[in-house]
Amino acid sequence: VRAVRFAGGALWALDQTQLPWRELELELRGAEDVVGALQRLSIRGAPLIGVAAAYGVALELFRDPDGLDDACESLIAARPTAVNLIHAVRRVRAAAAAHPAGPERAAAALAEAEALHAEEEAASEAIARHGADLLTGRPRILTHCNTGALAAPGRGTALAVIAELADRGEVELVLACETRPLLQGARLTVYELRRLGIEHALVVDGAAAGLIAAGEVDAVIVGCDRVAANGDVANKVGTYAHALAAGAAGIPFVVAGPSTTIDPSTATGDEITIEERDPDEVRTLIAGADEPRPLTVDGTPCRNPAFDVTPARLVTALVTDRGIAQPVTPTSVAAVLGRRA
Amino acid sequence: VRAVRFAGGALWALDQTQLPWRELELELRGAEDVVGALQRLSIRGAPLIGVAAAYGVALELFRDPDGLDDACESLIAARPTAVNLIHAVRRVRAAAAAHPAGPERAAAALAEAEALHAEEEAASEAIARHGADLLTGRPRILTHCNTGALAAPGRGTALAVIAELADRGEVELVLACETRPLLQGARLTVYELRRLGIEHALVVDGAAAGLIAAGEVDAVIVGCDRVAANGDVANKVGTYAHALAAGAAGIPFVVAGPSTTIDPSTATGDEITIEERDPDEVRTLIAGADEPRPLTVDGTPCRNPAFDVTPARLVTALVTDRGIAQPVTPTSVAAVLGRRA
Repeated sequence: VRAVRFAGGALWALDQTQLPWRELELELRGAEDVVGALQRLSIRGAPLIGVAAAYGVALELFRDPDGLDDACESLIAARPTAVNLIHAVRRVRAAAAAHPAGPERAAAALAEAEALHAEEEAASEAIARHGADLLTGRPRILTHCNTGALAAPGRGTALAVIAELADRGEVELVLACETRPLLQGARLTVYELRRLGIEHALVVDGAAAGLIAAGEVDAVIVGCDRVAANGDVANKVGTYAHALAAGAAGIPFVVAGPSTTIDPSTATGDEITIEERDPDEVRTLIAGADEPRPLTVDGTPCRNPAFDVTPARLVTALVTDRGIAQPVTPTSVAAVLGRRA
Repeated sequence: VRAVRFAGGALWALDQTQLPWRELELELRGAEDVVGALQRLSIRGAPLIGVAAAYGVALELFRDPDGLDDACESLIAARPTAVNLIHAVRRVRAAAAAHPAGPERAAAALAEAEALHAEEEAASEAIARHGADLLTGRPRILTHCNTGALAAPGRGTALAVIAELADRGEVELVLACETRPLLQGARLTVYELRRLGIEHALVVDGAAAGLIAAGEVDAVIVGCDRVAANGDVANKVGTYAHALAAGAAGIPFVVAGPSTTIDPSTATGDEITIEERDPDEVRTLIAGADEPRPLTVDGTPCRNPAFDVTPARLVTALVTDRGIAQPVTPTSVAAVLGRRA
């Protein structure tokens, strides 16, 4: 699976809203195209969002040599929770701004986006190795949302750990939570697990805690959208309940992500803005190209937070490309950031 | 909402598989009709199942004066796990068997079904009063699944408490969890809350814990499918995670149900067998009369436990028609059973 690739002056992105039913690539030729793809969740997953936005800056500069500021602004505003997005855009902006507006500037932006992409791929491999070393001997793993090659360059984050464990012959069963409302688990994680040839079973999100309590899970591993300086983790809505259940059952609850997901300027999870998304995601089933199907009374009011915050005390270990923070404390998180990649 | 009513020699039941899109009453004229409605989940909710089955025995005796044994057998087999069903059918059978086969027997069966129905309605009112007294001053309430007039005679169980609190002007907002896989919250609870004129918002099941942690919920109240002698509660899958989140946030987690739901012959939750249902409930969206819509890759393996067990230590109070057990211990649960209704 290659979620995004740059070719022929365009960013080609597998439209994740159409998976697993249609494998359709979108051709993105400017910042506006990338913003749309990010907001529709055609491209998703914090590290992948960052890489796509980086290419978005470069693409825009090929179209409009003077478009740097507007492009960066609109890309940063596309999704509010992922810190990778901000960092990626700022990094490409700095590289671009070192050159006068024109082809050279666009080329510099593209080179920086490609460098970021390559670094994220290397980070994925490092996460996979560190995480697999940690979870050895825990063959039944539960995960949430999608954290594979569709969420991050390379093999992903949490799902990269699972893939590495499977390569080592250490996975018996992966329980994939469907991840309402947008079903990234049912649609994307199942799609990836099947392609990877890893034994799996799909469960509704509400079934996870009971299965953990019943002794059917040896470890939980998830990705992260933002990690605060104290180790609090913002991740896909539904994550926190799995952490509570893992804690109550005494099994590891592990978070995996690139060290760039750690935001030292966010002191604790309380400071993380939780994106509230369109109520139609809850009111209707949006899956594939078919018409949304209503799930409730028309016009029903909804709350639709896209993320929740898991406090550091419930996180057994934070697995990054720069090694592992365990236990997860302000000191161990800072130590990870202080290490070289 | 009247889920079932007896009129004109028939049982009229609102077809719950069609809600909220179609308000269609089924006309049931014999035991076979009732068995079909129970198996299709047109009639659901443990107390309501019992009442419908009781009427089913009477209906059959009006059709076939010699049909008592066969009717009772087929009704008990319709949903073999529901304890209320067995008790209700046995009770009507005993009342009927005291009379010779003929109109008198049928009349006796009908009178007993009506008595049971009236008792269940009275139990609902008692639960509503006890629960509302307990939850006064907690205006933002989260609930799971459907526990209203569509699940039990009268106003229901947990939703009856909410309705009583609303009558007292004490409800600000009800957060209704959608309750995957069969969406009883999205389809049925929202339908009832709208008709009751109670402010509500629908959320995906995975959003509950984060909203509780964020201080947006003052209490959680749910129903129950079976309560063990020690107070462990089996309820709709997804309940346990809400209990963990309520416990972590220090807000009440309250369980409401008729005292008949307490099973003194089940010592603890460990002894409760959790029904594993059809994987197609997870793999596809089954809603209304439309064709099921696939949610994942065809043939994906699933785990689909219908219930989970919440340990008594996480249950702040057990609200029944015979009063409240609080804290929930073997002693307080036994005391509830020892009280008169």
